[in-house]
Order: sequence, then C-alpha cells, then structure tokens
Amino acid sequence: MGPVVAIHAGAGDRGAALLEQEKRYRDALLRALGEARASVEGGGGAVQAVQAAIVVMESFELFNAGRGSALCADGSVEMSAALMRSVDGAAGAVAAVRHTENPILGAAVVMDSPQVLVVGEAADALAERAGFPQRPTSYFVTDRQRARLQAAGAGRDHATVGAVCVDGDGRLAAGTSTGGIRSQPPGRVGDTPVIGAGTWADPRVAVSCTGDGEAFIRVGVGRYIGALVEHGVPVSEASERALAGVGQLGAGGGLIAVDRRGEVAMPFVTEVLPRGVWRAGEPPAVWVAD
Amino acid sequence: MGPVVAIHAGAGDRGAALLEQEKRYRDALLRALGEARASVEGGGGAVQAVQAAIVVMESFELFNAGRGSALCADGSVEMSAALMRSVDGAAGAVAAVRHTENPILGAAVVMDSPQVLVVGEAADALAERAGFPQRPTSYFVTDRQRARLQAAGAGRDHATVGAVCVDGDGRLAAGTSTGGIRSQPPGRVGDTPVIGAGTWADPRVAVSCTGDGEAFIRVGVGRYIGALVEHGVPVSEASERALAGVGQLGAGGGLIAVDRRGEVAMPFVTEVLPRGVWRAGEPPAVWVAD
Repeated sequence: MGPVVAIHAGAGDRGAALLEQEKRYRDALLRALGEARASVEGGGGAVQAVQAAIVVMESFELFNAGRGSALCADGSVEMSAALMRSVDGAAGAVAAVRHTENPILGAAVVMDSPQVLVVGEAADALAERAGFPQRPTSYFVTDRQRARLQAAGAGRDHATVGAVCVDGDGRLAAGTSTGGIRSQPPGRVGDTPVIGAGTWADPRVAVSCTGDGEAFIRVGVGRYIGALVEHGVPVSEASERALAGVGQLGAGGGLIAVDRRGEVAMPFVTEVLPRGVWRAGEPPAVWVAD
Repeated sequence: MGPVVAIHAGAGDRGAALLEQEKRYRDALLRALGEARASVEGGGGAVQAVQAAIVVMESFELFNAGRGSALCADGSVEMSAALMRSVDGAAGAVAAVRHTENPILGAAVVMDSPQVLVVGEAADALAERAGFPQRPTSYFVTDRQRARLQAAGAGRDHATVGAVCVDGDGRLAAGTSTGGIRSQPPGRVGDTPVIGAGTWADPRVAVSCTGDGEAFIRVGVGRYIGALVEHGVPVSEASERALAGVGQLGAGGGLIAVDRRGEVAMPFVTEVLPRGVWRAGEPPAVWVAD
C-alpha cells in the first residue's frame, strides 16, 4: 500500500470570510498536501509528512495556528502543538508558546527529548536552542484576528490545523497545531497538546482533532479511538462514537483519522471542516465549504 | 454499597529514608483516609473525598506534592494537579504552578470553570482569585528535597499523590497532585494534569497514576483503562494491561483504580507504592514498604 495523508484546517462555521476566501483556503490545503507528498516521495516517513503539511498550514495566515492564530483575551498569542508516531509511541507537545514560528517543530524537538509535554517560556527556549526561528508577537498577530477579537459574534474560529499519515512502511503519525480559542484567558490549554485527546497515534490508528477542546479532553477522543480500533471497531465507526461523546457534552468539532490500511475518517458536526486527502497514485482531494 | 476511597503516595524505591520514616508515612496515609472518610460521612460526594485526601497528602512534607515537592533542575518548584468526576465528565487541571499551597484546589477551581487545563502563572492567579492561599517558593522547598537535588543517586522519588473514590450514590472521582520529577527542566509537565493519562474518571472507573510520567502519557493509561472497563474487562485486568504498556516502554510506576462496584486495583512495578484503602464499615488499611 502506498502512503496516505489527510489534513484539516479546523472545524467551524461557514462564514462569509470562508466563502470569500475559499480559493485561498483550497490553495493552502493543496500546498500542505503537496509538501507532505514531496516529503514521502523524497523518502521521508509519516512523521516528516505530517510536519511538512502542518508547517505550511501554520504559515498560512488565515488558519488558526502559528501566524494568524486566534488572540487571547488580552490580545496576546499562545499556541500549542503536538506530534506522535506509532513506531515507538514517542510523543512531543508544547503548550502556551508565544514566539516559536512553527510550534509543530517545537513539538518535534520535545518528541526527541526525554520529555513529552513542555509549557510556556521553557518550550520556546527549547525550540530556539534547536535552531528554530523565534518571532516577536507582532509576527503572529494579524489585522484579521485583531478585528475578530474586537467584533462580537465573529463566528466560531476555524480552530486548529492537523495532519495524519500512514506511510509506505505502515508507520503512522499524527500532528496538530493551534492558536486556541479566540478571547481565551492566557494560560488556557485546549486538547491539541494533550496526547490522547486532540492528538494520538499508535500502530493501528492516527488521530488529529479540532473543535471545543475542553470536551475533546474530557472524552479523551484520540485515546478512545485507539482503544476502539484495537478492539476491532472500524476507524470510521470509532471516530463517530468518539465524536458522539463530544456531542453528549453539548460540544462540537471534528477530527481526521487514518488506520494502518489507509482507511480515512473525517467526521465533523460543525458547518464545515476544511480538509484534504492525498493517496499515492491519486490526485489530491480537498473540501473547504461543504 | 457504601463509599470506597483508595489513595497512593507515589511509586518508588524502598529507600533508607522510607524505612526510617515508615511510621510517619503510615500516619499521613491514615490521616488522608480519615479526612476522606469524614468528608463522605459528612455528606460530601466523591469529589470532596478525593480533594480532602489529597490536601492532607500535599501538606505532608515527605510526599512529593505541594510542600515537599521535588525540585526542578534550577532549584525551583513547579507543581501539577488534576481532578475529574464521573457525574458529568467535568475535569480540571493545573500545570507548572509555583505558588498555590494546595494545587488540587486549583484544579477544582478549573473544573468549575469553562476551561479544563490552565498552566503557569495564570493557574496560580485563578486559584488566588478563588481565595486559595498562595505561598512563596520557600514554603514548598524543604531541606530534604534540597539535599536530594544535590545528591547523586538519591533514588527514585516517591512521586505524586492521588486518590480515587466511589461514593454511596455510585459517583466516581479521581485526583492526582505532584511536584514532578527531581531535577526536571522547568516547563516539563508529566502525566498528572493530562486528563486521560495520569488522571481519569468516567461512570465506570476512576484512576490515579504515578511513575514515569512520560510513559503514562504515551500509553494514555487512564483513558485506556476506561475504554477497557467499558468493554467489560475487570478493573484489575484493565489496570494490569495498561501498566504492562508502560513496561513495554521500559518505564515503571503504579496506579490506583476503583470501579463503580467498589472493586479496587492498586498494581505497581516499582519496589513500593505507599497506599491505602477505606471501605465504609471497615477499618482503613495502609501499606508503606511492602
């Protein structure tokens, strides 16, 4: 079986901004899939493909991750990201980082360290020591997000970006990156860097979530899907069951998951989940406003 | 069925200090169980019992949580705690707090807020606004831990305290509190505040873990036990299977779990797991150095 990559750019509303910018969203998703494809075709594994896709999406200012992140209540930016791989169960996550240009690369540094989760200034410092660019707050804060913070009823943010991959050797990886929820109190951390909630990979399935993060933590969405798939539940049904648990808490969102045979599930209960899939030998497919 | 409370004070080595101080350890465990018992007999539910037990253990300077926490590499103290209840799946956690006298009470504040995880200064500030005492670093740093930081080969810390309870109405709760690993880099967060890893409660089982935190996160121990019990696996077997997963990563530790029928599991693969159980109508039982 050839490699399969799935990506998402956050569950949210079908707002006017999304419809106006649909082509830019689509192009960004295609670029992310293209970079992931180039990575695997260049000999990279699942982790590298996931990272490559997420770096593109973090750098695209209309997605809520990296540059263009949603702003905290005080106008600051606090980002989180996580990465996990099946081959040895290694995981890395950063939370409440403020300066690392690509938080997913900070998560990768943590994954290769004895730690799994590093928060705050220490996480930025770790990424900086590994050579990854640090930026001032002004780099991350866009006029668009400043306006959204001030506007009442700006709609739900298309929160979080993520990617999952099974590569040609059957290795799985998952990654997620987010700027959090608009107007969140500083210090608030959602499901993205909580391994087993917003991000999960084991030898059977890789998962990246988006939505009302607190509910995803309380359901333990990623780890729950992993346990269901281990018990023989198909990835699509496992994903639906986990998402139903989120719904029972009165919350919403979506997720992407891929199993080791390349089956992909991308359920969501919000209006939209901008997303895409690339399978070796096929053209990439993306959906923005459906 | 009457209420059942189980507590632990961290998986670790059977060191000379433990043996010398065995009576003090035992007394502290009995005090913690006594406070939990007084809470339920006074009409409190599972959450209150768990909190009451953990407050006692955080305040006891020989346990690695609250006062007496293990020190970071730079001599500072960073603590984490989490609380979760079955009745509505609410959860709250704080990480990298430095001043909240009882981090478990900070976690309780978060549990009653829209957030689930709050890190760093913001978490201390939240607890302070709720009226919980803040202390200078000197309150938490004990001579014992300062000496251990400086001593090579001081043995594995008895890291983390925790409690689980099923109350007379069949409601479950779990809580965990820790000072982390001795000599950890600042910003490092272990499994304790990661809901679904070190702390978990659902309508079937409540879990509190201790040990090599990174491995417990990578296995998703709490959420995995929850999923296994949901599938009909007895709590003892589910706990053993999750702990075996930790062992496969070359790591160790232990956990306590209680199911809704009051079955208790307390497996550990370290030399000791100081722990205790109280069942309504029975005298409390504690183990320190076995």
